[in-house]
Amino acid sequence: MQPGDDLAGMLLEAAADLLEPGDLLVVTHKVVSKAEGRLVALESIQPSDLALRFARRWGKDPRAVELVLRESQEVVRMARGVIISRTRHGQVCANAGVDLSNAGGGQVACLLPLDPDASARGLARRIQAAVGFAVPVVVCDSFGRAWREGIVNVALGVAGMDPFTDYRGTRDPHGYDLRVSRMASADALAAAAELAMGKVDGVPAVRVRGFPWRPGEAGGVALVRPPENDLFP
Amino acid sequence: MQPGDDLAGMLLEAAADLLEPGDLLVVTHKVVSKAEGRLVALESIQPSDLALRFARRWGKDPRAVELVLRESQEVVRMARGVIISRTRHGQVCANAGVDLSNAGGGQVACLLPLDPDASARGLARRIQAAVGFAVPVVVCDSFGRAWREGIVNVALGVAGMDPFTDYRGTRDPHGYDLRVSRMASADALAAAAELAMGKVDGVPAVRVRGFPWRPGEAGGVALVRPPENDLFP
Repeated sequence: MQPGDDLAGMLLEAAADLLEPGDLLVVTHKVVSKAEGRLVALESIQPSDLALRFARRWGKDPRAVELVLRESQEVVRMARGVIISRTRHGQVCANAGVDLSNAGGGQVACLLPLDPDASARGLARRIQAAVGFAVPVVVCDSFGRAWREGIVNVALGVAGMDPFTDYRGTRDPHGYDLRVSRMASADALAAAAELAMGKVDGVPAVRVRGFPWRPGEAGGVALVRPPENDLFP
Repeated sequence: MQPGDDLAGMLLEAAADLLEPGDLLVVTHKVVSKAEGRLVALESIQPSDLALRFARRWGKDPRAVELVLRESQEVVRMARGVIISRTRHGQVCANAGVDLSNAGGGQVACLLPLDPDASARGLARRIQAAVGFAVPVVVCDSFGRAWREGIVNVALGVAGMDPFTDYRGTRDPHGYDLRVSRMASADALAAAAELAMGKVDGVPAVRVRGFPWRPGEAGGVALVRPPENDLFP
């Protein structure tokens, strides 16, 4: 995948014949970011004093630290060599979603898409136009979590489906109100897709069949809790 | 499901013929808790002063608040009517995993299993003895997350499989070390299972086929980050 490549076209070429009504696609943000040119050569970055100090203390590349800070609107925690920040999109994650890679020789940083919901919408539009039915698209990345080890995939961008399955107002089989049961289904779909994707197999997209998604346009931004409602700002 | 019911026997009766080598089962903690008798009638609970005050301020049932406090080893946040605490198992979650229900007439609280890994191991042992091959078991619950809306299923208990897929030490297709890539696969499997489970359909277990699990006995406790390594204690 190179900047400017036609990701939707490549997905369609690979998978148009495999899609049926009801399917959805989970696409890793990595190919989206690359196609959208969200790559930065580390050698082009001039680190700030803060980046230099943090990098020196924790044995990091100061240019990578600088990029993380530039991609952040707010630092949530900065300790033990880890930066947890709120990205321009509002996502709270480690390193502002900046991945380092050797893609193409020199050290390159892959940033998150500028607007993952717009990326997902663009892909969903192109796919629907080609196959003739709606195929929701989830653009995912793998995030760490507070209190839990390991990383899981979450949904950054969502198009064509409600990111939640909302059970509020319904009753469980015993007649009890399900008060807080709003499942983050798009996150669960992203997590499920990772099981089929692996991390080193170069699988950029996963087809999901059989999940009863409902149309919706709230997008992945709806999965981000507003800081004023969060107990861990 | 009633206290003392033979959950393994019921799962085998329903699903033994559906299992093949390589499969695994995700079981909701709710049926495990019920079979293990982890039910408490709210009317039997005498709330403490703290529970009374918090409940009065936020319009909660003081007996439910009391149960949450009793199931906690540490309160992480207690605000806006929400209690985020560290359970006896070390899990950080809302309400210490205590669910309220009308099961059987009066108001009943369903607590987390005392030892979800032991529950998972017990089920896995019984299933392997009956079908003749190993079937890993994940016992799940749905948790909220910091910074993200909606809840997702996570793995509380894990038996018979490595809860992680560890890519550390491997290289991505571009030759770059995957430094922090340890996927919490058991959590992803729990999240995936929820997509098939729903919340009101009374589906207590999901068969997962095609995931290349590796044997391991670290258990669900390995998914809990020790507080001393956490940036959000």
